[in-house]
Amino acid sequence: MVKVIAVLTAQEGHEEKLFEALKSVIEPTRAEPGCFHYDLYRDPKTPTRFVFDEAWESAEHLAAHARSAHLTAMREATKDILASREVFVLDRAS
Amino acid sequence: MVKVIAVLTAQEGHEEKLFEALKSVIEPTRAEPGCFHYDLYRDPKTPTRFVFDEAWESAEHLAAHARSAHLTAMREATKDILASREVFVLDRAS
Repeated sequence: MVKVIAVLTAQEGHEEKLFEALKSVIEPTRAEPGCFHYDLYRDPKTPTRFVFDEAWESAEHLAAHARSAHLTAMREATKDILASREVFVLDRAS
Repeated sequence: MVKVIAVLTAQEGHEEKLFEALKSVIEPTRAEPGCFHYDLYRDPKTPTRFVFDEAWESAEHLAAHARSAHLTAMREATKDILASREVFVLDRAS
């Protein structure tokens, strides 16, 4: 299992547009092979900050996700409204 | 439900000591009231980086955890070996 934590922050004033774009990829992503979970969270104290909590069967399934049409389109649509993007690909350690 | 993602990075050379300290609080934390999950992950590409994925029944349960003896002791024992500490307290948004 591959765990992914992605911390995405919108530029001020663009948070609702980013939120809509992030929500739009949830259902198609959950339908992808090897997707164990793909859940979106928001920081109530910093409304521009969103966090995806993801779990994938393998690095190959994750790579296929990264190449998927819906994710590629979302990245293109949001690249100019992101303030920061940190993606942690993690191994279980407990 | 309150979700917490904590990203903790050790100073170079102190990662194994941090890892041991983080592991030491897992069982006592999982035994705390209102702890849904408390899982530790490590970044294989950046071995100094650790991520806790936590879920708590309420903000009050999370606050009690923050005051717990084992967490307080661990924070004291690791405060001089941390390079960075980012804690995101999140609401479910999907």
